[in-house]
Amino acid sequence: MQNSSVNAQSNFQSCSPAPPLVSACDRAMMKRCIELARRALGRTTPNPLVGAVIVQNGEIVGEGFHPGAGKPHAEVFALRQAGDNARGATIYVSLEPCNHYGRTPPCSEALIAAQVAKVVVGMVDPNPLVSGSGIERLRKAGIEVVVGVEEEACRQLNEAFIHRILYQRPLGILKYAMTLDGKIATISGHSTWVTGAESRALVHQLRAACDAVIIGGNTLRLDNPHLTSHHPDAHNPLRVVMTRTLNLPLNAHLWQTADAPTLVLTETEAHPDLREQLLNKGVEVVTLKPLTPAKAMAYLYDRQLSMVLWECGGTLSARAIADGTVQKVLAFIAPKIVGGQFAPSPVGDLGLATMTDALTLERVSWRQLGSDYVVEGYLP
Amino acid sequence: MQNSSVNAQSNFQSCSPAPPLVSACDRAMMKRCIELARRALGRTTPNPLVGAVIVQNGEIVGEGFHPGAGKPHAEVFALRQAGDNARGATIYVSLEPCNHYGRTPPCSEALIAAQVAKVVVGMVDPNPLVSGSGIERLRKAGIEVVVGVEEEACRQLNEAFIHRILYQRPLGILKYAMTLDGKIATISGHSTWVTGAESRALVHQLRAACDAVIIGGNTLRLDNPHLTSHHPDAHNPLRVVMTRTLNLPLNAHLWQTADAPTLVLTETEAHPDLREQLLNKGVEVVTLKPLTPAKAMAYLYDRQLSMVLWECGGTLSARAIADGTVQKVLAFIAPKIVGGQFAPSPVGDLGLATMTDALTLERVSWRQLGSDYVVEGYLP
Repeated sequence: MQNSSVNAQSNFQSCSPAPPLVSACDRAMMKRCIELARRALGRTTPNPLVGAVIVQNGEIVGEGFHPGAGKPHAEVFALRQAGDNARGATIYVSLEPCNHYGRTPPCSEALIAAQVAKVVVGMVDPNPLVSGSGIERLRKAGIEVVVGVEEEACRQLNEAFIHRILYQRPLGILKYAMTLDGKIATISGHSTWVTGAESRALVHQLRAACDAVIIGGNTLRLDNPHLTSHHPDAHNPLRVVMTRTLNLPLNAHLWQTADAPTLVLTETEAHPDLREQLLNKGVEVVTLKPLTPAKAMAYLYDRQLSMVLWECGGTLSARAIADGTVQKVLAFIAPKIVGGQFAPSPVGDLGLATMTDALTLERVSWRQLGSDYVVEGYLP
Repeated sequence: MQNSSVNAQSNFQSCSPAPPLVSACDRAMMKRCIELARRALGRTTPNPLVGAVIVQNGEIVGEGFHPGAGKPHAEVFALRQAGDNARGATIYVSLEPCNHYGRTPPCSEALIAAQVAKVVVGMVDPNPLVSGSGIERLRKAGIEVVVGVEEEACRQLNEAFIHRILYQRPLGILKYAMTLDGKIATISGHSTWVTGAESRALVHQLRAACDAVIIGGNTLRLDNPHLTSHHPDAHNPLRVVMTRTLNLPLNAHLWQTADAPTLVLTETEAHPDLREQLLNKGVEVVTLKPLTPAKAMAYLYDRQLSMVLWECGGTLSARAIADGTVQKVLAFIAPKIVGGQFAPSPVGDLGLATMTDALTLERVSWRQLGSDYVVEGYLP
């Protein structure tokens, strides 16, 4: 897999017989880059997660990751740590080095100045306007460049960033937890807990990787959730409540903005008192007309967000799917039966009349988590 | 696992140092017994599935299985095939040899008469009144007996027979196929097909192993199913329709009794014309008052059935669960989203108010089937 995606223009191509283009060591170093990159999970938007490793004579002499927008890129940290050892070394970086003057000078120039011998790149820049220009600059300077090592893992790491760049919208992930008979709550609305501790821990990790979490007013009223990552060192997402009516309780865990920021999206000007009280608690209240999932996602895109988790009930999730704002589904299934034809389902009406119209997920994976299973897939 | 369940009274116990009580060969022979037994799948009720293998000097000299009630037992076929080679041989049999005169003479006596040296038994007879008596008779005759080889697999093979003996009711298995958002049909009732070809093939095999398949009138009217095993050589179950009103169409695949027998259970005397037309087509119509799942299962028990598959919709499945007539759940899950808060769910109202009341399945297994997953578990 990895070999087949190596860039065909690699300098190695002229050797005969061809040496193995990508070694196990190359792949291990790229995996280390990804590991480093993940240290900034949830904190880099609108920038990507990037890690870099510099290897000289088989030893790691420098490592770095991009900690967030406005801060230096991964390569800069790695070069700083390597110092003179960067000369003649190989640098691994999970994303193509940048080639433009932004808030920081281009990494391509920094690598040329440091006289590295070789650059191994996980994936090219997803922006079609600049894609490949960093690599071209390096090659022009006589540096050997290999592209596409652990490419799939590098793309997975930054799937939200890639989606953002290509579609000018955050990646939307619908997450729900249901019983084996397809219920997210009992007939009376009770839902704590559908799944076990392992599943809930994964949800907390997922929130740490997301820029925002969205629920509807109904979920707020029924469940009064925290929507945090439940870990003192982890990032907490922006907690977003979509409510057309602004019919919300005065007391809710989400109003404790010391835990994490909260944003209420509404389309009404009603309830000025509640609005004022929310503002006093540090909750943002923003009016969007009409309040649709697509409009909410456009707004969150403008706020520089990349990955948005929909943890809403069936009505809002169906509107989000119909709106095209959900790309990925994460379904947690617990092996229990709760029953209830009218107990809440994970997805409301999509207007699909026949089973052949159903949205078949792509790139599906199933994974055991304690006694539950989590199913991950992408909408077509 | 196998070693730990070997009967502590085995003659081997006196040897020191103890040789391995159960060899890989023993386990392989017992697996062969199970394989043979399965040739009569769906055809032995109210009797168990049993296979037997006779081994002399490391060679199989006789094999047999029980083909159905009123026919000889597995041991008899194996002894016939072995002839004189049974003398001094080891016989493997998946269930304790019988020790009573029924429609056939006791197998214990036949084994003693054949002068076998050793009997390896998969599991003891589940009937507490006779359990162990066949083994005792053999041991009294000086034959070495080992019990509990591949016991779990032997118990699994006959789980319906065991349930029947212990509880005087058929084993009830609820089977449904749903989307990843918990729907067994679209909002308009369309359900062909939720799952893929591999899942549907497994359902056909499952029907071949069952004595009856039950649906409600609504499933008949909506889906007009065949409920057969779709294989020319396989057993077809008795197809049962539960309908309080007898409000059924004149044309339905189930009325083609040349394919497989059909039984209609109702509690009304209404629709005498329809009743007569069904009888003319060879469909049985039986009145049970009141028509409940428990009453239906008691009736099917009296008709000598052991394993009953509930392939009904949510209303009837909830009544069957509430009635205590379902012991096992087989849920097929397809990775697709169809939506619809009011689209049919697999299980109707069970009166459970909180998620902590949900029925958590035991002994759960998850298995991939093409792009679907099948989840198997037992109700507590």
